[in-house]
Amino acid sequence: MVHAFKIGYINIVGEKMKLVIIGGGPAAVIAAFTAKSIDSNVDVILVKNEKGVFVKCEAPYNLAGMPKLEDAVLPDEMIKEKGINIVYGEVKEINRNKKSVKTENEEINYDKLIVATGARSWVPPIPGIENALTLRDADDVKKIKEKIAGANKVAIIGAGAIGVEIAAQLKKIGKEVTTIELMPTVLPGAYDEEFIKKAEAIIEKEVNLMLSTKTLEIKEGKVITDKGEINADAIIAVTGVRANSELAKNAGLEVGKYGVTINEYMQTSDENIFAAGDCTDTRIKLATNAVMQGKAAALNALGVKTKRYKETGAMISDIFGYAIGRVGKTEKEAGECKVGTANSFSKYQMHPGAEPITVKLIFDKEDKLVGAQIWGKEGVAERINLLSLAIAKEMKKEEIAQLDYCAHPSNTPLPFSEPIVMAAENVK
Amino acid sequence: MVHAFKIGYINIVGEKMKLVIIGGGPAAVIAAFTAKSIDSNVDVILVKNEKGVFVKCEAPYNLAGMPKLEDAVLPDEMIKEKGINIVYGEVKEINRNKKSVKTENEEINYDKLIVATGARSWVPPIPGIENALTLRDADDVKKIKEKIAGANKVAIIGAGAIGVEIAAQLKKIGKEVTTIELMPTVLPGAYDEEFIKKAEAIIEKEVNLMLSTKTLEIKEGKVITDKGEINADAIIAVTGVRANSELAKNAGLEVGKYGVTINEYMQTSDENIFAAGDCTDTRIKLATNAVMQGKAAALNALGVKTKRYKETGAMISDIFGYAIGRVGKTEKEAGECKVGTANSFSKYQMHPGAEPITVKLIFDKEDKLVGAQIWGKEGVAERINLLSLAIAKEMKKEEIAQLDYCAHPSNTPLPFSEPIVMAAENVK
Repeated sequence: MVHAFKIGYINIVGEKMKLVIIGGGPAAVIAAFTAKSIDSNVDVILVKNEKGVFVKCEAPYNLAGMPKLEDAVLPDEMIKEKGINIVYGEVKEINRNKKSVKTENEEINYDKLIVATGARSWVPPIPGIENALTLRDADDVKKIKEKIAGANKVAIIGAGAIGVEIAAQLKKIGKEVTTIELMPTVLPGAYDEEFIKKAEAIIEKEVNLMLSTKTLEIKEGKVITDKGEINADAIIAVTGVRANSELAKNAGLEVGKYGVTINEYMQTSDENIFAAGDCTDTRIKLATNAVMQGKAAALNALGVKTKRYKETGAMISDIFGYAIGRVGKTEKEAGECKVGTANSFSKYQMHPGAEPITVKLIFDKEDKLVGAQIWGKEGVAERINLLSLAIAKEMKKEEIAQLDYCAHPSNTPLPFSEPIVMAAENVK
Repeated sequence: MVHAFKIGYINIVGEKMKLVIIGGGPAAVIAAFTAKSIDSNVDVILVKNEKGVFVKCEAPYNLAGMPKLEDAVLPDEMIKEKGINIVYGEVKEINRNKKSVKTENEEINYDKLIVATGARSWVPPIPGIENALTLRDADDVKKIKEKIAGANKVAIIGAGAIGVEIAAQLKKIGKEVTTIELMPTVLPGAYDEEFIKKAEAIIEKEVNLMLSTKTLEIKEGKVITDKGEINADAIIAVTGVRANSELAKNAGLEVGKYGVTINEYMQTSDENIFAAGDCTDTRIKLATNAVMQGKAAALNALGVKTKRYKETGAMISDIFGYAIGRVGKTEKEAGECKVGTANSFSKYQMHPGAEPITVKLIFDKEDKLVGAQIWGKEGVAERINLLSLAIAKEMKKEEIAQLDYCAHPSNTPLPFSEPIVMAAENVK
């Protein structure tokens, strides 16, 4: 069957279209799946440099062995069994004139190309930074596990979401943890103050938390800060990520502050090259965004014009067994706005196992939902998703207050205590 | 401050408006709260015949003492402390000419009246039905607890949501349970067949489940059915509820098949009388609906014109530790429709504690979401609520598939495995 007539892609009528995807993370893999699912005749080639697909979000949990590292690596068979070809290797060059990519060993031609090269750990230029380990890939997990095997004291530089999750897992396996953060709060910039305070109250019970602390130098076994020296058998720096955009840049593609520039159809400055995931010019470097971008990139590469979905920035992280989530803007980011907050419980409050939950909703001047934050032990993620949908649909306070929700003793708050509805009603 | 100028209610300018509410359940209590919260000058009088507010959904759980009965009764102080007056008594008559209600002991005048008389257990006219206990109120809990204290075998007539929840709690405290259901399935009519099957597979492992079984007679210690006799130390009939609409009917108010007739402003056939909750003409007799109707009735009674919210019928129940939820129409109810189903997990599937979850979405011919069903152990209720919002907003398949959701190992499925999104993508 001729591809061109099936989905409207008109290039090499009568021949198989060749879609090459560079990368091995969620954006790349999902782009490949999507392309194959909309047209099984497309020749999809995934060029990746590692065996298996490491589920990066599990990295902190792998440190405590829950789950084991090998269980967090999805097998490449799940890709191959869809009829996707995998070429193992690192792409050294994109040749836009020849429409090819070159690895160490081979050159592969493409009709359309998707760049999904991801991001890598970034560390600040502190003297001795090479004495700190980073955590992103499966290899990083192995290195840290080796290092901490005999260690007692661990210093973590950075109190962002991943830094806090690493701290929690290291505590779980009995390490003494010092967390050093340059900024005056944990999760800097990600949440409004009252939510940050909830997180800090939990974290400072568990680790030696040093905020507003500048790391001056890292030595083997020691972190020197402007507030004193910290002895540590292992030092981990979790200070952010940067897009892997050099390959695209070297090929002359436009690159912005946060990565490869794309238009609303996931297209780079070369009409035959698309990009998706952490390597693109977005501040929101999350696996879920990578997945959605991968889908959209594949559709557009195959000629199915599809606008990027509405990124609302839905995210959640773990704070020593509590969940903190946000979507849209914080109150601070929203500027002039109206806010409603409500406290409730995860189950009927008299029911065994009921846990507190706090929901904050942020509306603009016209009462349109623009942001939300949630703190609790259960039911945080799904409520963030609900509010993400409400933000994408530009829903108003009254519409959210009129949500028809369900209630059940062991599954939800009391029938009159759904915190999303209460927060919408409480808006001042 | 003169009430009339505050919210636009114009009747007895300069005098306090008198709002009388008949009932002690969620519709009545929330109506009272709402009225006081929008105008603290309104004289709100709640006429109820029991001390405290029994949280009826806890009744099955009270049987196993989790929670204790006394913990499931909210104290009337929470009502009184808002400045709401409580008159204890049973209303015998509404006099629409005099605009008053009469209890055994007193007559109370009203400017506006809200009827929120709830519903009661209904049992079919089986010979000897008086030998079966029912379960709805706190008194019912006490009676059943007394009866089962020395019992070993319990027969439950009815395998609807509450019947199944009672069975689970009685099993928990070591009873041998036989469940007898007239219809050929558990949860009759509430879910599509594949979801019913999931529930049945769990239930029949735990109880002696007799479907398509007609109860012919109930004797002390024995249920006689068309499939044989069941010996039972205690017999409980959970065969539905009926609206308490007699009071309204006797006052000449219009009453429909399921209860008191109301318009979209919660108004009965008398413009000064509103109705809310289980006593109204709705098939959906749920506490959450009662709450939303109570709010709307109070607003309208106080002159704040407010349309009834969009009832989507969001509901959830417990099947021996699993949750089953629905919203909108089933596939069967929807008729001509498109369906998408997806299986996923409550956490990253390699993460400890990940539990399977199944989501089914039902779209109409124009790809508008009209219904959903979910089965799982965690994250069912909040997803039902999300889909309830999507139904109320008449969202399309593509919009749901483009949801920007969050992902985290211990809180959600894998980044590419949110079952709501997958189900929307899987639509055939």
